[in-house]
Amino acid sequence: MTQTYALDADTTARLAGLAQQLRVDSVRASSTAHSGHPTSSLSAADLMAVLLARYLHYDFANPAAPGNDHLIFSKGHASPLVYAMLKACGAISDDELLMYRKLGSRLEGHPTPRLPWIDVATGSLGQGLPIGVGLALAGKRLDRLPYHIWVLCGDSEMAEGSMWEAIEQAAFSGLDNLTAIIDVNRLGQRGPTRHGWDTGAYAARMGAFGWNAIEIDGHDIADIDRAYASARATPRQPTAIIARTKKGRGVSAVEDVEGAHGKPVPDLDQAIRELGGRRDETVKVQPPEPGQRPHVFPAGELRLPEYQPGDRVATRTAFGQALAALGTARPDVVVLDGEVSDSTRTEYFAKEHPDRFFEFYIAEQQMVAAGVGMQVRKWAPFASTFGAFMTRAHDFIRMAAISRANLRLIGSHAGVSIGEDGPSQMALEDLAMFRAVHGSTVLYPCDANQAAVLTVAMADIRGITYLRTTRGETPVIYPPGEAFAVGGSRVLQSGPADQVTIVATGVTVHEALAAADELAADGIGVRVIDAYSVKPLDAATILQAAADTGRIVTVEDHWAQGGLGDAVLETVEAPDGPASVVVKLAVRDMPASATPAEQLRAAGIDAAAIVAAVAQLVAG
Amino acid sequence: MTQTYALDADTTARLAGLAQQLRVDSVRASSTAHSGHPTSSLSAADLMAVLLARYLHYDFANPAAPGNDHLIFSKGHASPLVYAMLKACGAISDDELLMYRKLGSRLEGHPTPRLPWIDVATGSLGQGLPIGVGLALAGKRLDRLPYHIWVLCGDSEMAEGSMWEAIEQAAFSGLDNLTAIIDVNRLGQRGPTRHGWDTGAYAARMGAFGWNAIEIDGHDIADIDRAYASARATPRQPTAIIARTKKGRGVSAVEDVEGAHGKPVPDLDQAIRELGGRRDETVKVQPPEPGQRPHVFPAGELRLPEYQPGDRVATRTAFGQALAALGTARPDVVVLDGEVSDSTRTEYFAKEHPDRFFEFYIAEQQMVAAGVGMQVRKWAPFASTFGAFMTRAHDFIRMAAISRANLRLIGSHAGVSIGEDGPSQMALEDLAMFRAVHGSTVLYPCDANQAAVLTVAMADIRGITYLRTTRGETPVIYPPGEAFAVGGSRVLQSGPADQVTIVATGVTVHEALAAADELAADGIGVRVIDAYSVKPLDAATILQAAADTGRIVTVEDHWAQGGLGDAVLETVEAPDGPASVVVKLAVRDMPASATPAEQLRAAGIDAAAIVAAVAQLVAG
Repeated sequence: MTQTYALDADTTARLAGLAQQLRVDSVRASSTAHSGHPTSSLSAADLMAVLLARYLHYDFANPAAPGNDHLIFSKGHASPLVYAMLKACGAISDDELLMYRKLGSRLEGHPTPRLPWIDVATGSLGQGLPIGVGLALAGKRLDRLPYHIWVLCGDSEMAEGSMWEAIEQAAFSGLDNLTAIIDVNRLGQRGPTRHGWDTGAYAARMGAFGWNAIEIDGHDIADIDRAYASARATPRQPTAIIARTKKGRGVSAVEDVEGAHGKPVPDLDQAIRELGGRRDETVKVQPPEPGQRPHVFPAGELRLPEYQPGDRVATRTAFGQALAALGTARPDVVVLDGEVSDSTRTEYFAKEHPDRFFEFYIAEQQMVAAGVGMQVRKWAPFASTFGAFMTRAHDFIRMAAISRANLRLIGSHAGVSIGEDGPSQMALEDLAMFRAVHGSTVLYPCDANQAAVLTVAMADIRGITYLRTTRGETPVIYPPGEAFAVGGSRVLQSGPADQVTIVATGVTVHEALAAADELAADGIGVRVIDAYSVKPLDAATILQAAADTGRIVTVEDHWAQGGLGDAVLETVEAPDGPASVVVKLAVRDMPASATPAEQLRAAGIDAAAIVAAVAQLVAG
Repeated sequence: MTQTYALDADTTARLAGLAQQLRVDSVRASSTAHSGHPTSSLSAADLMAVLLARYLHYDFANPAAPGNDHLIFSKGHASPLVYAMLKACGAISDDELLMYRKLGSRLEGHPTPRLPWIDVATGSLGQGLPIGVGLALAGKRLDRLPYHIWVLCGDSEMAEGSMWEAIEQAAFSGLDNLTAIIDVNRLGQRGPTRHGWDTGAYAARMGAFGWNAIEIDGHDIADIDRAYASARATPRQPTAIIARTKKGRGVSAVEDVEGAHGKPVPDLDQAIRELGGRRDETVKVQPPEPGQRPHVFPAGELRLPEYQPGDRVATRTAFGQALAALGTARPDVVVLDGEVSDSTRTEYFAKEHPDRFFEFYIAEQQMVAAGVGMQVRKWAPFASTFGAFMTRAHDFIRMAAISRANLRLIGSHAGVSIGEDGPSQMALEDLAMFRAVHGSTVLYPCDANQAAVLTVAMADIRGITYLRTTRGETPVIYPPGEAFAVGGSRVLQSGPADQVTIVATGVTVHEALAAADELAADGIGVRVIDAYSVKPLDAATILQAAADTGRIVTVEDHWAQGGLGDAVLETVEAPDGPASVVVKLAVRDMPASATPAEQLRAAGIDAAAIVAAVAQLVAG
């Protein structure tokens, strides 16, 4: 499909004209919006014109076609160029182009998948390339289709470590279906970049990582064309096209001028004149070869692991075993891990389904980004590391929500209950982080059967879902086969004389049950709720408990902010909620090293602390 | 000071003996603890023995001495080796060594500054080297002392992007006072690393980034010695010593064996025998040259900018101008930015105090890590980027709290009020993130004078402090010279007939005031509280308002989880709190592009939404 013959003069002129059209529409859109990043668009227009007209394989009438290439603007602020390209391909009208950045328009300041031709949201720099790695891995190892991933990168974002995680992973995986086009326009937001126009600095670095690195003049059509041809033709290596360009190219008032970032051009009419006037040509983009079908892995029966009440099993183990079972039943499930699969227990899946397991070593940003990339192609990614290290990927998780991604993240080693390893390994802020992700679901099972059921449920939850697992063994309290709805809870103990409700989740459920026994011996009846679904919380059950008992103790292995306690507070304090008081037991002092039991005691979230809190409420 | 002559046989034997002692104590400590990472310690023992005995300049009796070198274990899990070294230097006793990982011991599972010889907490991989870059920058540009920064890195953590942010920054800044010692023991936690023993892979990469990269046998004393001598002697370049080692070196049961990560050796007595038996020698570490004094910048008077009520000024601008003024008065203040100083407005400081301004380009992890490194040397860092991109550094912020770091972070472009740029640029989870950082302070000013006062106050706050600033101009409502205490608030409007309290912060304060005016016209009296100190919240004022008005509306430009609303709920719902209901107005739907006013309206956090919420409460 790829043309590698030399360009004739006519074609070159036509491509240059297309580039000018993209430039004109970029400045028109941003000037109409009174904001946006035209200068960052002008630098890359030639690169994108040649890609559109000669190398991209894409059916704009069918953006979900499996054989389509993928084009990601890692430099998402060049959105005027994205929309100018969509207009040039006939996907959007000129009227819509001029709705850029206006209320209600799907042409947002930075691209999002509200447009069907956009795979993922970008705008936080350094994310497009790692996401592209995920798509390229999907192409090679999952779909097994020849689609190509093109990622337009800024030179500024090469400072982001996540880019180098991606560069390492792509070369290591031999992703010759991935091309990074680096728009070296020399100027960042506030001034020159570290390396300016030293394209050799980027080439040396990427070459050392194993890329096919090509330095070109990013405004020379023939140079660009040769580079794309090389990218298509080079086997076993990703290609980096390192293109020297001028920011603001073609508009003299802003060309290679500092202080012109993120602003409309000063004089639109003059800019359009300089760019050769308005054009409205449509470019015919080559569609992919018809009839391409993604690979489908065989499906089997779901045989969920079963655990016997009274046994002690870590929820991380049950998650891992259930995930392996789910993998058999659901051929779309893929698993990603950050070099800790023996701890997170995704090793069970890796062993049974090695084709669908991806090792990202210790690169959590790349891991999450790859999950975002894979779900673009309708795979169902589960990505896991220690809950504490999910914070490493926070910006990627935040952006995944804007991408409307369906992504499942599993954090093991939650809370102080991990014991001796100390606070660096303890997830104590993960519930707060994930509750504050738009549209998220947050689950925290307390026993093995519950963990297994919720693991399976995650496959069908839309948006970002987080499952928090526990390092240590905990008693199995639910029989196999019990159902656990997302948004539900379990009342583990209740009676007509309940004086206080204890709301617990995960490891503290067992402390709550022990406390209830002790309190019962003292003649104090308490209700115990297992709030395994932290978000959405089972509001009806919590409100009923508040109405029945008035007083609530929440207890969680997490900082006092943003977790279960706050979720319960929000529920009971609503205007139509019953009068109630809430005592929040949570981790408040910095932990150190100690045994798990000592940690729970020191943090004031063990059975004794719950008993004391209840006793005080009852006495008060 | 540095010896560069060849080692004689006696010295070599003595160093090898010291290495064996470090090994013996590493296995003893972890076996006594029944946990820990002895095999990761054994691989690096020779490297550390030579460093201690011949290259480190450190006064263990005076860990705060300005001339001391700094040694950071980026591979913090090799803590048994850290503590074995401290014992070998006479800093801790053998009895204390054997308290490793026990309740109450300061010898935690991963090192923390609870030990006076430890600068920063490590244990989340990929952080020690970026922190070391901060210390090396402090040595070169702030203290102007010849101390050297030695960072022991694992090979696994080279997969973390943050390492490459550091590698780029260190070479770019010519940090010849920084040496990375990479312990290439081939085995990660769950198996082989990406590059195994291919030390050339690391050398090629780091060489391409501009480092003096030296490949050595990490168990050859003479090889190690030559490498350190080269590191000390090489000008204008940081040095990477890429040392091929064996994990578990010296204990046959675990030497270069998979599956032996993070576990005590199987047979302690046999291990000690193989390692030549227990030793208790003390190594004399060279102290730094005496009398070294850090550079002190000149101090001037604090002349805070003043803004006139009624004017419109962005709080980011006031922050930037106040920071520049603070920099004149406080010569310990240093400022770090992530290539957005024109947006965050730290450009004012950069202009007035270029010697104390550090540009990290778009590398937020490195930026925050450098701040952590600089505060080790008692500088007072302020680091800024868009609030949304603080999420990129979440893991570093979490670890900074464990480091007991005093660090000020400023996030601009908070919330939907930024307008057209869209959700990728909007901080909507930053309050939740920072509230859930241990010991943190969270401030969100609504006007320029308040922003200026709080900026100055931040210089003296211990722990992690976050200041949230607004992109757009907001009315100045406080006169210049007014004081704002951390933990305080302002009651902006109140009367005896207040029916509802509106608690607002930052940009929503102005919406609350507008709503109050409108409600007053309808005969509904409301109290308006400016909760500029989100953490700690002014509980007394909130509780008084709850007691007086019963009903509270909170309104914030942030997701509904973990922010102001949850802080207020936690305060009023306490057992001794008054009966009250709380309605939380916050951002609940994914925003798109629109003007700031349209965004506030769409999110339901503008004056009209507040009026509606109050009216419904009053009617209900």
